[in-house]
Amino acid sequence: MSSQSSIQASGPTPEHFFRTVNAFQLTRALKGAIDLDIFTAIAEGNTTAKALAESRQASERGMRILCDCLAVTGFLTRAGDKYELTPDSAMFLDRRLPSYVGSAIDFLLSQTVTQAFEDVAAAVRKGGTTINDEGTMSPDNPVWVKFARAMQPLAFGMAQMIAQQVKLDPGKKTKALDIAASHGLYGLVFARQYQKLEVVAVDWANVLEVGRENAEKFGVADRWRALPGSAFDVDFGANSEGGYDLVLIPNFFHHFDPPTNEKLMRKIHAALNEGGRAVTLEFIPDEDRADPPHAVTFALTMLVTTASGDAYTFAEYEKMFADAGFSRSELIKLPMGIEQVIVSYK
Amino acid sequence: MSSQSSIQASGPTPEHFFRTVNAFQLTRALKGAIDLDIFTAIAEGNTTAKALAESRQASERGMRILCDCLAVTGFLTRAGDKYELTPDSAMFLDRRLPSYVGSAIDFLLSQTVTQAFEDVAAAVRKGGTTINDEGTMSPDNPVWVKFARAMQPLAFGMAQMIAQQVKLDPGKKTKALDIAASHGLYGLVFARQYQKLEVVAVDWANVLEVGRENAEKFGVADRWRALPGSAFDVDFGANSEGGYDLVLIPNFFHHFDPPTNEKLMRKIHAALNEGGRAVTLEFIPDEDRADPPHAVTFALTMLVTTASGDAYTFAEYEKMFADAGFSRSELIKLPMGIEQVIVSYK
Repeated sequence: MSSQSSIQASGPTPEHFFRTVNAFQLTRALKGAIDLDIFTAIAEGNTTAKALAESRQASERGMRILCDCLAVTGFLTRAGDKYELTPDSAMFLDRRLPSYVGSAIDFLLSQTVTQAFEDVAAAVRKGGTTINDEGTMSPDNPVWVKFARAMQPLAFGMAQMIAQQVKLDPGKKTKALDIAASHGLYGLVFARQYQKLEVVAVDWANVLEVGRENAEKFGVADRWRALPGSAFDVDFGANSEGGYDLVLIPNFFHHFDPPTNEKLMRKIHAALNEGGRAVTLEFIPDEDRADPPHAVTFALTMLVTTASGDAYTFAEYEKMFADAGFSRSELIKLPMGIEQVIVSYK
Repeated sequence: MSSQSSIQASGPTPEHFFRTVNAFQLTRALKGAIDLDIFTAIAEGNTTAKALAESRQASERGMRILCDCLAVTGFLTRAGDKYELTPDSAMFLDRRLPSYVGSAIDFLLSQTVTQAFEDVAAAVRKGGTTINDEGTMSPDNPVWVKFARAMQPLAFGMAQMIAQQVKLDPGKKTKALDIAASHGLYGLVFARQYQKLEVVAVDWANVLEVGRENAEKFGVADRWRALPGSAFDVDFGANSEGGYDLVLIPNFFHHFDPPTNEKLMRKIHAALNEGGRAVTLEFIPDEDRADPPHAVTFALTMLVTTASGDAYTFAEYEKMFADAGFSRSELIKLPMGIEQVIVSYK
């Protein structure tokens, strides 16, 4: 080893700027690793760049460079020339496990989403999406079929957490409405838990096909019914067929402005039986919009993909829901800090 | 405030996965802020979303959402509805200051670079760039003109640090060769400091026009000469016109494989006078390629943009340079930890 000298820096540095400018590279590196299914290959015992390259018909040099990136960014550990999975990667990025969430990139890094982020300045100038007038909220937008398939593993965990928090009477015949049901998992987890529960799922017809598949997988297809169309327009059927005890609204309100949300919540209020509850799953920043970071930055996703969506605070939701007629709303912070739940009482 | 409850998570979480999948959003948010020149607007006293929106003909809603993102990601601070610059942003993102580095996005987020990262898996399979056979190393590639203009502010600071470390005899007539000179700043900072120094700059002819402009700005155009062409092919003119005392090789070796670098370093060795030095500026990961993170991940940039480039360790450079005939090499760690310098002695 030759001599080394070192000079100290003090004061401001452009490091954070350059790290953030290059942050997209980490996204693309992780996508490359998911595309090549490297995490599963390591779980199967291919722990060197050479073994990984052989198992994935790739170059050893490319595999070494990518795995070193994954190691310095916390997705792998390395000892000598052996790569190992971190506990998080072992649980969530091994494709053989039901806890695998890697498919989420099919939605989160879909062309629709990444293109919406191409020109953030233009969206800031306009005050909303520049994709088209409605952004991803256009009727039957195929991105939601992608969403339904890609986000199922994550949603399944969230749905189970909600079902732990929101209880129904197992001995009573009950009815739930699942709005923007997507893959249907939020309603289906309840249907599986409560044998006397009937679930009506609202979403675009193309999306509800994914929900139908899942209802069959869960063995509850006889108590699950698709109600295709816009949640703003369809008749929830609460009068003719009895009201709802539970209305689930997972990841929906953030796409719209407060008056639109209040109007929908009033329609939901009317569809609920006395004592019924509306359960909202959302990205909810604190009142000063300083924390949690991903809930604050989620507002930018709404800015660039919708005409007037946002990440609302609990106080903002509380007001919308009170104005829509609900007597009170309660915030439940879910584990993992990704999303939170609001339970609103008729 | 209604009642709140909270559930604790334990064990593995998919948070790091989702944060990294969405990391590209932070890059795009920062690009949007640079495009709108928000940092300069705040420095000029527009500290609310309303004032910023007015100063930039943008929507207040869009400005509030973007500035909240910049605040949670450490580029701004916020108190109430007022946004302020952090010390780093005040120094490096105010376009009115010579220390402004925002223009770097014109290269770092150029279509050439971002497209190269589109399909990392394909580059890992192939073991090199999929752009074309030579990637960004094709002759006269226009991306290097973009680089020359975009990276000047950062290079100027680095060049000054190198000139502080590498001294010439101010009383003696000396000669320096600046390889892949780009904007020319590495050689020009020396030319400005040493009145008897003559600098020869090698790069593509289109790129050297930027160097020529800078030589005039620095008032040293009479002692700065462009030598257009590939550093591998052009005659450095060391025999007919006297040898070099200093050869600068900033950000060049990482584009090539070790045999190519050794060959070039042998040519440099032959062009140096006895006692002359070759000065390499590079991204240099530690020997176990675990640190610093940006030097490790820089190898991925080389994988996706070149046929056979890499981020080499000091030991790897030391070997290439020793094999090329240099008696010893010395590593100097520069402040800010972005790049490091190797001084090699003939």
